[in-house]
Amino acid sequence: MNGRSDIASESVGPTIVAGEILVEIMATELGHGFLEPLQLMGPYPSGAPAIFIDQVAKLGGGAAIVACVGRDDFGTINLERLKGDGVDISAVSVSERYPTGSAFVRYRPDGGRDFVYNIAESAAGQIGLTPEARQLADKAGHLHVMGSTLSVSGLKEIVAYSVKAVRSRGGSTSFDPNVRKELIDLDGGLFAALVDDADLLLPSGDELLAAAGVESEREAVAALIARGVGEIVLKRGAAGSTRFGADGSRIDCRGFLVQEVDPTGAGDCFGATYLTCRRKGMAPDRALLYANAAGALNVTRRGPMEGLAGFDALDRFIAGADRAK
Amino acid sequence: MNGRSDIASESVGPTIVAGEILVEIMATELGHGFLEPLQLMGPYPSGAPAIFIDQVAKLGGGAAIVACVGRDDFGTINLERLKGDGVDISAVSVSERYPTGSAFVRYRPDGGRDFVYNIAESAAGQIGLTPEARQLADKAGHLHVMGSTLSVSGLKEIVAYSVKAVRSRGGSTSFDPNVRKELIDLDGGLFAALVDDADLLLPSGDELLAAAGVESEREAVAALIARGVGEIVLKRGAAGSTRFGADGSRIDCRGFLVQEVDPTGAGDCFGATYLTCRRKGMAPDRALLYANAAGALNVTRRGPMEGLAGFDALDRFIAGADRAK
Repeated sequence: MNGRSDIASESVGPTIVAGEILVEIMATELGHGFLEPLQLMGPYPSGAPAIFIDQVAKLGGGAAIVACVGRDDFGTINLERLKGDGVDISAVSVSERYPTGSAFVRYRPDGGRDFVYNIAESAAGQIGLTPEARQLADKAGHLHVMGSTLSVSGLKEIVAYSVKAVRSRGGSTSFDPNVRKELIDLDGGLFAALVDDADLLLPSGDELLAAAGVESEREAVAALIARGVGEIVLKRGAAGSTRFGADGSRIDCRGFLVQEVDPTGAGDCFGATYLTCRRKGMAPDRALLYANAAGALNVTRRGPMEGLAGFDALDRFIAGADRAK
Repeated sequence: MNGRSDIASESVGPTIVAGEILVEIMATELGHGFLEPLQLMGPYPSGAPAIFIDQVAKLGGGAAIVACVGRDDFGTINLERLKGDGVDISAVSVSERYPTGSAFVRYRPDGGRDFVYNIAESAAGQIGLTPEARQLADKAGHLHVMGSTLSVSGLKEIVAYSVKAVRSRGGSTSFDPNVRKELIDLDGGLFAALVDDADLLLPSGDELLAAAGVESEREAVAALIARGVGEIVLKRGAAGSTRFGADGSRIDCRGFLVQEVDPTGAGDCFGATYLTCRRKGMAPDRALLYANAAGALNVTRRGPMEGLAGFDALDRFIAGADRAK
């Protein structure tokens, strides 16, 4: 219909992402903000693109990241984790000037979160289309883009180059519009292009509606498919997920019942698992089951990357887990 | 001899500082660096100039700070503390772009410290000679400068303007060369000028030698007095302190025996107390005793500003404390 390829198989080349590597520091007690000395835990390796690509590698998929960290322990803890899990970090530059990005997070009693971020003026804000980034893009089979990175000025040129490079090799793209509404309005052009170009769109909740610009889920899906999106996987958190195909098909997958400790990173982990399963040639329903399991397992551990798991661990989890009704 | 005034009395105007306001995040267990998730405590209000000026205010001295924080909880916790303790924060600007500066600190088993800093590329690095800073300088009676702030580019113009403004009103200056040797070599001009101009120099340990550029303590003191320094108070940590006068006099003050919890900030607290006592007209020996007490009391609390204390608390502490031999 639209001439674009489906999600490319692993043989085309590794999955790449570009964006923020952060450390996350978490308050251990519920409350509001950081206005008095609190018990904290950290640093945890973090950053949506880093979580995503680490999970791709955990599942045995080819994985690489374009990023920037500071020359400090917070950069080291991230790079050691990524490298240890099998991510190609050849396109991660190390800034002498900027510190590694950071995010302090505290859960509120109502389930919301308070943050103190340092991203734009950290090393994470300094990414650009380096020679190493070009080299990665030139051999990549799939590009994944995170909405959280759209505000970083250097992302645009990386995405422009990488989409072209990946497409020319028969590769594919995916987009997780995990982005606040205000950011979409600020940079509508890039956002719209990423949506239109996506072989796989990974929204959660209201983001689906924001991406399509319409009111109901059914209309939003129809509008996105009409714009050329290959498939849409809607993340519903604990309630599970739904996959909408370009052919009008719909698959619902129930969530797993787990004791939630820390939801941060679950959506990124889910998306990475679905994509990687599909790139390995799995059918959508099986990919969705693994993705649900990976997201559920991830929320049982404190720290956004501490609960990432490979297929063996996911199979064990699925065999022993309870499902939502 | 050198035509400069002595330490100016409080009637000339408040004490002002310029420099970094930070939050400090502390590892609760000894170890090396931040290469795995750890138990942390924070944010604690911090930054050498902030600690210093808060202690001036705690002692009832006129106190104001030229600084910059981010529009985040870490800026708020600092500003609320400073304002609550009586510091004039009219010349603290709030950056929309940069986050409040931060310092992660972990004590090593050998007593050393590992840091991860974000200062230069934080709001703390954005200070400059704003209209509000000029207004402060134009009514100030004393300017204190911290060596830790010398690497911030905006400090030079603030110091140049403030030294002139303070001098023209019969005010005085002090300098704490709490600075690494490499920084001195990088910006030798400003450092040397601050030493030469100081009515009060507040070095600790090897810094005295670095400031004078000679090898032994006695020679260093003589060289500094010859350069025009009014008085020198050497901080010896738990071992106490020594005051050297321009007239060749020497006063030694033994340290207090306390259970050290967190030494960060003790030197700044010591210096602020000595200066403020002198500005109140106290003789050097009494000022030195209060300064030793303030430094000792400060190390018994976790957090660089949590152990700051006014005269009532210092008198109670001195009455009940043991002294080093």
